[in-house]
Amino acid sequence: MHRSIATVSLSGTLRQKLEAIAAAGFNGIELFENDFINFNGTAAALGRITADLGLSIDLYQPFRDFEGMPEAQFQRSLERAERKFDLMQAMGASLMLCCSNTSPLTLDDPARAAAQLHELAERAARRGMRVGFEALAWGRATSLYGQAWDIVRRADHPQLGLILDSFHTLSLKDDPAGIVDIPGDKIFFLQMADAPLLAMDVLQWARHHRSFPGQGDFDVVTFFEKTLLAGYTGPLSLEIFNDVFRETPNRRTAVDAMRSLLYLESEARNRLAAAQAERPQRVLETVELFSPPPVPALSGFSFLEFAADEAAAETLGALLRQLGFRRVGRHRSKAVVLYRQGDIHLIVNAQPDSFARGRFDAHGASVCALGLRAADPVAAVERATGMRSQRHDSPLGPGELPVPAMIAPGGNLVHFVSAALGTTGLYEADFILEDGGADATDTGLQAIDHVALGLAPDQLDTWVLFSRAVLGLEPGESLELADPFGLIRSRGVANAERSVRLVLNVSQSQRTRTARTVSVTGGGAVHHIALRCEDIFSTVEQLRANGTRFVPISDNYYDDLPTRLDIDAALVARMRAAGVLFDRSPAGVYLHSYTESFGQGLFFEIVQRIDAYDGYGASNAPARMASQAQE
Amino acid sequence: MHRSIATVSLSGTLRQKLEAIAAAGFNGIELFENDFINFNGTAAALGRITADLGLSIDLYQPFRDFEGMPEAQFQRSLERAERKFDLMQAMGASLMLCCSNTSPLTLDDPARAAAQLHELAERAARRGMRVGFEALAWGRATSLYGQAWDIVRRADHPQLGLILDSFHTLSLKDDPAGIVDIPGDKIFFLQMADAPLLAMDVLQWARHHRSFPGQGDFDVVTFFEKTLLAGYTGPLSLEIFNDVFRETPNRRTAVDAMRSLLYLESEARNRLAAAQAERPQRVLETVELFSPPPVPALSGFSFLEFAADEAAAETLGALLRQLGFRRVGRHRSKAVVLYRQGDIHLIVNAQPDSFARGRFDAHGASVCALGLRAADPVAAVERATGMRSQRHDSPLGPGELPVPAMIAPGGNLVHFVSAALGTTGLYEADFILEDGGADATDTGLQAIDHVALGLAPDQLDTWVLFSRAVLGLEPGESLELADPFGLIRSRGVANAERSVRLVLNVSQSQRTRTARTVSVTGGGAVHHIALRCEDIFSTVEQLRANGTRFVPISDNYYDDLPTRLDIDAALVARMRAAGVLFDRSPAGVYLHSYTESFGQGLFFEIVQRIDAYDGYGASNAPARMASQAQE
Repeated sequence: MHRSIATVSLSGTLRQKLEAIAAAGFNGIELFENDFINFNGTAAALGRITADLGLSIDLYQPFRDFEGMPEAQFQRSLERAERKFDLMQAMGASLMLCCSNTSPLTLDDPARAAAQLHELAERAARRGMRVGFEALAWGRATSLYGQAWDIVRRADHPQLGLILDSFHTLSLKDDPAGIVDIPGDKIFFLQMADAPLLAMDVLQWARHHRSFPGQGDFDVVTFFEKTLLAGYTGPLSLEIFNDVFRETPNRRTAVDAMRSLLYLESEARNRLAAAQAERPQRVLETVELFSPPPVPALSGFSFLEFAADEAAAETLGALLRQLGFRRVGRHRSKAVVLYRQGDIHLIVNAQPDSFARGRFDAHGASVCALGLRAADPVAAVERATGMRSQRHDSPLGPGELPVPAMIAPGGNLVHFVSAALGTTGLYEADFILEDGGADATDTGLQAIDHVALGLAPDQLDTWVLFSRAVLGLEPGESLELADPFGLIRSRGVANAERSVRLVLNVSQSQRTRTARTVSVTGGGAVHHIALRCEDIFSTVEQLRANGTRFVPISDNYYDDLPTRLDIDAALVARMRAAGVLFDRSPAGVYLHSYTESFGQGLFFEIVQRIDAYDGYGASNAPARMASQAQE
Repeated sequence: MHRSIATVSLSGTLRQKLEAIAAAGFNGIELFENDFINFNGTAAALGRITADLGLSIDLYQPFRDFEGMPEAQFQRSLERAERKFDLMQAMGASLMLCCSNTSPLTLDDPARAAAQLHELAERAARRGMRVGFEALAWGRATSLYGQAWDIVRRADHPQLGLILDSFHTLSLKDDPAGIVDIPGDKIFFLQMADAPLLAMDVLQWARHHRSFPGQGDFDVVTFFEKTLLAGYTGPLSLEIFNDVFRETPNRRTAVDAMRSLLYLESEARNRLAAAQAERPQRVLETVELFSPPPVPALSGFSFLEFAADEAAAETLGALLRQLGFRRVGRHRSKAVVLYRQGDIHLIVNAQPDSFARGRFDAHGASVCALGLRAADPVAAVERATGMRSQRHDSPLGPGELPVPAMIAPGGNLVHFVSAALGTTGLYEADFILEDGGADATDTGLQAIDHVALGLAPDQLDTWVLFSRAVLGLEPGESLELADPFGLIRSRGVANAERSVRLVLNVSQSQRTRTARTVSVTGGGAVHHIALRCEDIFSTVEQLRANGTRFVPISDNYYDDLPTRLDIDAALVARMRAAGVLFDRSPAGVYLHSYTESFGQGLFFEIVQRIDAYDGYGASNAPARMASQAQE
């Protein structure tokens, strides 16, 4: 498809925006009028700049408060339109967006609106231009696409068509099913926006909190699919008003934007391809939709890799032994050591001149790579690069297995390890295995349950989309947790079988525990690692015996538990003694405990999941953060 | 009055909160239950800590989902209450807040609710405790104070009373007038919260956006007045859920909190004292309300003072001469130079070891003090110190006039200059007047129109309250302006006669023009200075002739103007030639132009106000900021 984006969606001067849009591979733009008004150059100059960048100006927008007006205002608005047509002509734009009227002067009179839009289209036609009419969710007389289509149909002018915007339809919970009955060639333009579900005024929601498809909670795929089924073949565009994007470096935003369209296209394509009916098949013949390899079939964490130097590697090694890990191997060609317990593999990389060392030099000892088990690692990286992530190739020693990898937002690596290798095959090939020694006591830790990341506020949407589009992880509920020094927004993302879980934590504050991890690492870095066991009481007891220190939990927490929940007193006593926290959902129970932090604020969480509990103990995070604040 | 605050209103661990609350002079606290649950100590220990700090625990809160429940849940809730009473007894708290039920299990049955609350009060009575019932705005059956009072009345138990919270009443636009008919001794507690008017879900509004009285848009004074007229004599307390306060250093928040109560008391006192009826007079005899000197009667800016060293003083002097200022004096005892044009006095202070030099060393050349003309400078500073601002005394040379001063939030000084001195009296006393020389050409600048401050996000509420409570300036509309690198929130504050105007600008972004001023100065610093003239075209022409450089405005701006507004083409042509911007309100017209920035991002605005225009040309700020971004 022809991919486009409204200039209002990015930060920067108009020139900077255009450069970022072109660099991300877009075909065209919607020119947001205010960007032009504040642009220090003529319309013709803008036309040359966009052409030089390989961008078409697909839409000039918005033209406001036009239809349904009393005669005097109508004549004035026609004059205003002529001036805008002058500009469009000079810059080489041929489609104008006219959005439904919000003026108190407008009359709720579809026949008048149609007649006036007919006249506007007639003026456009004289210049070889077209006008698209769009229903704003807060339009005074026209707020639904069905109403807008009714007016366009009545106006009956070849140069007048409909513009669809998913935000305006989905924010009002209007049904997009009716779109399929609109002739595709009468839909002149399609704007796709997602948004989080927020209980607020729709205008404020629209102006501040839209997001790219795949970043929010709307069913944008269905909306897009309906538009395609209508026979639409025009541009696929993004018009996103978002306070955070206004501040985010525009190169990153532009990549997110492109990824969101590719995601949308590929999801819609999958649905259309799955349908056996004639209409979807016709769409696939008519429109070229992005078709990457499928989302990777992930079956768990293969390993986590820590960046270190020699001294940090010693310290980390001692800590891991305390946690019950054994040193089981060293890499054939690099200063890299492998630790293991249960199915958990932790790698400490102190190889000079390596990617890991670069991360260590920038951020200190920290997680620099995740290994994920995937059915088809090569396809997984192909999907990632198709979705505009960068691949990463490490130098390979003799006899070592290639492990396809890519760079996640924020700079850490994600490796895909072939599931066919089993849980240990990779290490047998790449490491000289050693006897872990008798000094480390197994503590019953069995698997990596989840990995929590500390993100800067402008990285959350990026990560939600990356998780969905590249890794095939679906986001859960968005939660707010009270740290003593600010609110943390937290959102889990996980694959369907729940063998890979990440938790995305964001803080606006400079002073919360999460934010301090971000400030060390620049964001997108691992902030804690949750390890799963089958019997948390015996595991914690053994860890304490090994010398692991846990974040202390107030007695008041345990006094409060039985007032909130119907819970066995003996269990409470046991948890109190062990310092274990409790959460319950209708599906199951979550028992967990947090270690004290080591370097860079990083810490471990010990967890036991009972039955089908699917969360992360969010209700206990305030207790943990309050305790950490008292550390 | 007995002044109290809920611990949830401040950032930090419970211990840090208590210390900040005590340091700000509060008499007591409301203990927010979660703060206790996460507190690493017993209830008895908490009681000792608060007592040592001179704080009483006035309220334990909240006790949720109690009234109107089916029998099984009710019995369980009584058990839960007994555990809370245990804690309250141990910590020395005797009043529990029970908020109206939000559970889907609750029955809309006031008689049942009353009976159950009666039983709760009976349990409390056995321990010598009391229960207060409060209507939450989102309570399922009970959301209005009138409903809550009806239930309390029916329950008819001496240990059961009503708790009022201004947020819950004013957010629902419920009328507080009925409060006066409730017996004062049946109102057990009063929570005062303000809030900005936001079109959003009331629960989200309440949880994230409350503010201290005087910081928001609610008529909190009337609410408080009605409660006093009811005969209430209990604690005056604050319960503020605010995302920003959660991140703000708690000592500052606690001072703001205290200032808000003092402001509320003094405003209510003024109203009661003005009434001639018996009831208000009785209130004033019963309750001691804070009574500072009145807000200062301000009649304009006396001067602005720049902090500099010798080199910066030279540079600034050259710049000011370009703007048409003359050097008219040097200070009798300090390295301080005075510049004048019209009624504008600008002082450049390069005195070593002075307050100004400290500011210069920290922030570079910047405005370090405002002088305001006041009818009674001594009373103005007394009010300021009463409202918890710090006074500032400068060393005084022989023959110099004392100019009472105080420290504004962020660290700059505000001097009050006696209006009786006229516009020049101060300078005749303190300065050796010189002939300004023939080199400087008067450019027609006559007065300081307004001073714009760049604030960090957590300083806006502080400044709104400071402006109101200390300076007597009332806030105008809160606006959002689009900088190419983020949104700016902007709010003007001004005195009634509009001779003193400040504009408070805030940016979340690190990259906007406003934020960059903040990053240099730490916030609360002057970001631009608007100077008023009578004929902007001649002033700008003269300034350009003097070599002043203006921020260029795009031709597209002038092309767009006549499409938006009915405006004379000749005026547009003139503005285009001069680079002057245009705004219009129903009251008048605003013509303005911005100079390029000099050190620290600071710049000047040249303005002409026609008729009663009362704004700051906000609609043109995006054009200015876009142009500055291209500088």
